[in-house]
Amino acid sequence: MDDISKILDSNEKIDILPHSNYKIIQDSKKFCFGIDAVLLADYVVRLESRKKNTQKIVDLGTGNGIIPLLLNYKISNSFISGIEIQKECALMAQRSVELNNLNQKISIINGDIKNIQNLMERNTTDIVVSNPPYMINSHGKQNPSDYKKIARHEILCNLEDVIKAASYLLGSKKSFYMIHKPFRLNQIFSLLQQYKLEPKNIRFVFPYVDKEPTMVLIQAIKGANARLTVESPLIVYEGVKQYSKEVLEIYGKK
Amino acid sequence: MDDISKILDSNEKIDILPHSNYKIIQDSKKFCFGIDAVLLADYVVRLESRKKNTQKIVDLGTGNGIIPLLLNYKISNSFISGIEIQKECALMAQRSVELNNLNQKISIINGDIKNIQNLMERNTTDIVVSNPPYMINSHGKQNPSDYKKIARHEILCNLEDVIKAASYLLGSKKSFYMIHKPFRLNQIFSLLQQYKLEPKNIRFVFPYVDKEPTMVLIQAIKGANARLTVESPLIVYEGVKQYSKEVLEIYGKK
Repeated sequence: MDDISKILDSNEKIDILPHSNYKIIQDSKKFCFGIDAVLLADYVVRLESRKKNTQKIVDLGTGNGIIPLLLNYKISNSFISGIEIQKECALMAQRSVELNNLNQKISIINGDIKNIQNLMERNTTDIVVSNPPYMINSHGKQNPSDYKKIARHEILCNLEDVIKAASYLLGSKKSFYMIHKPFRLNQIFSLLQQYKLEPKNIRFVFPYVDKEPTMVLIQAIKGANARLTVESPLIVYEGVKQYSKEVLEIYGKK
Repeated sequence: MDDISKILDSNEKIDILPHSNYKIIQDSKKFCFGIDAVLLADYVVRLESRKKNTQKIVDLGTGNGIIPLLLNYKISNSFISGIEIQKECALMAQRSVELNNLNQKISIINGDIKNIQNLMERNTTDIVVSNPPYMINSHGKQNPSDYKKIARHEILCNLEDVIKAASYLLGSKKSFYMIHKPFRLNQIFSLLQQYKLEPKNIRFVFPYVDKEPTMVLIQAIKGANARLTVESPLIVYEGVKQYSKEVLEIYGKK
């Protein structure tokens, strides 16, 4: 058994990843993954499942490394870089990578995606993923030491920074995947097209079948033509706090 | 009883409109209304229900006048113009207006929406509606005397013509409503924004809860800010060919 006191800071805990036996370090004061990351990783895996070659994947704003860990478990022929601007989160992600002995498959980079051209080469990535901050910048009101606010609000990077970095990284006809808020879909489509990433597939996540969606999964392909597939609704709950069959399957519980 | 032989051409029949006692002339070789028009009219009525003033409404590509008739029944304080390029369809719509004694409330215009500036005044319309041809122009392969193909394919007008005419007609903060195919959503959003019509509300129409949507209802407001509401899924069937409770209500059968 590992001596976890060497691995964990105070407030941190180790959880098991959905649908795997991987471990992940979480910190309720800094970053804990949500259903967003789990749904996004599942969406990527499903739409990329037919590709056989080794996939070079970049996760923009990796937090505690949840998406690289989930993708590595499902896409074994991958090399994944997770970029995270907050040093403490990047270090937590790096410790999770080491905890699972995945140093050869996942690289965590403490860097700023606005500076992507100094971090990675242009047009060489097969898949870019991002679960970015959803909320529009409220003009510096947040405390920059508040890790969770930085993960949720556009304080250190905004939607355009994420899309611009994705476009820089991807090769022709390669895919960018993102989860975001439906109320920003106009702006998302407009920015994607501005950076030559054509929306090709979207799926709305509805808490219940009779409610408005709270999230939208998006695949955009660099240099593709403008024909969109809208998928069937992804419905999270069927009864009161009872996950739907599909969500239970995504979590590996059915 | 009317002498219907004076009103009807060969192939024509008279149907009763959903949710009303209005009559409509249909011709299976020229134009019969579909569920699209019924869902669109219901969507307009729901989103416009709070407005008290007389509404000046224009329907672009009115076919046999189904949308003006449905809207007149629900929005009593309205004056509706239906523009139709195909003379035979416009005449059929005009006869339906007369059949219901609605000459004072609905005007059918046989004209080309590409020529809208010669038909109607700029910036004076409160609501523009359209159930336009869905399919991308296949470059003149269709027979121009095929009424149904003209209604379904972009032969005599395309998406940009419709959106441009809507933007010309509408006053500031007034709404354009359209039903269209989800696969064209990228292009729809991009053209709407180009003509200063901001998408504000969309609702996808799914045949079944586990299928991809076949239609999308869209409200765009002239000069509005970019914040979109995505509504709950509108699901057409619950069992095999069994309309859902919501669709039965829209058809006035529940």
